[in-house]
Amino acid sequence: MNDWLAAPCRIPDQAAADAAAARQGSLTKPPGSLGKLEALAIQIAGLQASERPRAARVRIAVFAADHGVAAEGISAFPQSVTGEMLRNFASGGAAIAVLARELQATLEVVSLGTVNDPGEIPGVRRHVIAASTANFCTGPAMTDAQLDAALAAGVASVAGAVAAGTDIYIGGEMAIGNTTAAAALACALLGEAPEALTGAGTGLDADGMAHKARVIARALALHADAATPRERLRRLGGFEIAALAGAFVAAAQRGLPVLVDGFIASVAALAAVALRADARPWLIFAHRSHERGHVRVLEALAAEPLLDLHLRLGEASGAAVAVPLLRLACALHGSMATFAEAGVSEA
Amino acid sequence: MNDWLAAPCRIPDQAAADAAAARQGSLTKPPGSLGKLEALAIQIAGLQASERPRAARVRIAVFAADHGVAAEGISAFPQSVTGEMLRNFASGGAAIAVLARELQATLEVVSLGTVNDPGEIPGVRRHVIAASTANFCTGPAMTDAQLDAALAAGVASVAGAVAAGTDIYIGGEMAIGNTTAAAALACALLGEAPEALTGAGTGLDADGMAHKARVIARALALHADAATPRERLRRLGGFEIAALAGAFVAAAQRGLPVLVDGFIASVAALAAVALRADARPWLIFAHRSHERGHVRVLEALAAEPLLDLHLRLGEASGAAVAVPLLRLACALHGSMATFAEAGVSEA
Repeated sequence: MNDWLAAPCRIPDQAAADAAAARQGSLTKPPGSLGKLEALAIQIAGLQASERPRAARVRIAVFAADHGVAAEGISAFPQSVTGEMLRNFASGGAAIAVLARELQATLEVVSLGTVNDPGEIPGVRRHVIAASTANFCTGPAMTDAQLDAALAAGVASVAGAVAAGTDIYIGGEMAIGNTTAAAALACALLGEAPEALTGAGTGLDADGMAHKARVIARALALHADAATPRERLRRLGGFEIAALAGAFVAAAQRGLPVLVDGFIASVAALAAVALRADARPWLIFAHRSHERGHVRVLEALAAEPLLDLHLRLGEASGAAVAVPLLRLACALHGSMATFAEAGVSEA
Repeated sequence: MNDWLAAPCRIPDQAAADAAAARQGSLTKPPGSLGKLEALAIQIAGLQASERPRAARVRIAVFAADHGVAAEGISAFPQSVTGEMLRNFASGGAAIAVLARELQATLEVVSLGTVNDPGEIPGVRRHVIAASTANFCTGPAMTDAQLDAALAAGVASVAGAVAAGTDIYIGGEMAIGNTTAAAALACALLGEAPEALTGAGTGLDADGMAHKARVIARALALHADAATPRERLRRLGGFEIAALAGAFVAAAQRGLPVLVDGFIASVAALAAVALRADARPWLIFAHRSHERGHVRVLEALAAEPLLDLHLRLGEASGAAVAVPLLRLACALHGSMATFAEAGVSEA
């Protein structure tokens, strides 16, 4: 079922990156004075195999799903919110809908199944796997077939993005309970203790977080024999986390740069890199989230995110907020005059 | 000559900020989950006295000037660059020209005088004070009349911005040698040693920086008797630094929020707040620059900048890069649905 995972990821074009670096050195500014914006333009040049990279056409996919572990009382919000938010994405009132509109980015909303199922909604693609995952405190979150279906949802999203001529792909998520699943999965992938990666999620207090860490500890004990990244993802992940992991690997295979959102998306990136290490170069990390475990996950990925705005919403919102940085980096790179063109003296 | 400095700055509208904070709490997201973007929208709401703030109409003023202290060999670039860059601003090849175009912001370029004077250039406003300041290692950088003229250039720029219905004002600078002047002025205002605030500027090596710190130490010794903020600004500043300081005070007096750029602009902000402490609430700090002294200056202003991208170009470029954050913060604040509107359950 996972033959597609055997296909290698593309290798970034070093010649294009070198040409972009040379161009940066010729532009009318002190060398290096645009800091991370220079590095970003050079990185995207390598990924897009073009001396003049672009971030005009942005595709944002948001995967919604529910989690069996919500039965353990680990979220500040009721589980009905996931289904309710599908309407809010489609009608334009959710944060990511506002951001996509402002950025003139394409927003794709995919329902992988919700406990409170609103049915057909214009603007929401149904790729329903089940009403929710199973409670991973009592068994595996997903069957093998469910995991494959979730991964396939991500692969299909990326295929659509590539067909549409996307420059930058963003994956996001909406799922009550998924900081618990993401923390559990990250603990299993990194060998960390639950306390290190358990955060407030949508707004737990200290007691709530302690309870959440105990729930994760129970799950880790139950699934301690899960030996492969795929098996850890199946037993401890969620449909939307698996879809994001599948999308990130597929994007790397297709040569589509990914802008990674916050904690959940970064754990999906961790799973993607665990599944295929050669996916890593295609991932650009947008921001450092306020969710406690994110810093450790970023470290494990050797990721240096662009923004640190104390965001912790998910929905791809942090990645969306970073889109203008990519666009401005590309605009500066492509449109600034060289010293020769402008007749400006060099150092 | 400085009667205008006696006028108080406006007081931000707490009721509007409170209304904006209440609105943030009603939007379909976990409370606080948009982090600094929430705080930004609430802050601008208070400054604009509007529950629904906006950052659509952005005015960027870049002040160019030359520095007598360049004679001490403190810059990696020749002084002719200041005049050459005026053409590059006007013809659209400079970083800030590219950014202003991308952001659909108004770019105002003001020449306060350059050693290499390109004469009239369409798109450059001449407010020429002198070819350069005097070398502050041997005397005051400016006469009283020159300081007043430089401050007035900033006041005039803000008057134009207010008349044009500007939402957010940005001030930037281009001046070979001005990290030396800014560091010297900041040392005098903060009582710091030159080594603490002397950085690489456009690209000095360690020897160059040590020389630059010695130059600043000589200037500080010569002007140790300068006892007031105005006198420190006159003796150690530059035309563009004074223009920015004047603009920042005037913006605060007129009730126009300011987005402050990097090291030079922040030292101008320090001078502005030293001249009128009630200007401080009107200053939003865009980014932490890679120039060494910036962190200390930001600390002194109790400023928490939005971005940290290792920028060190000046020209208002770092403030321009932060403009989309303000716009997206305002869009989220103004356009997201409330829980009631979207029919989404609360925590």
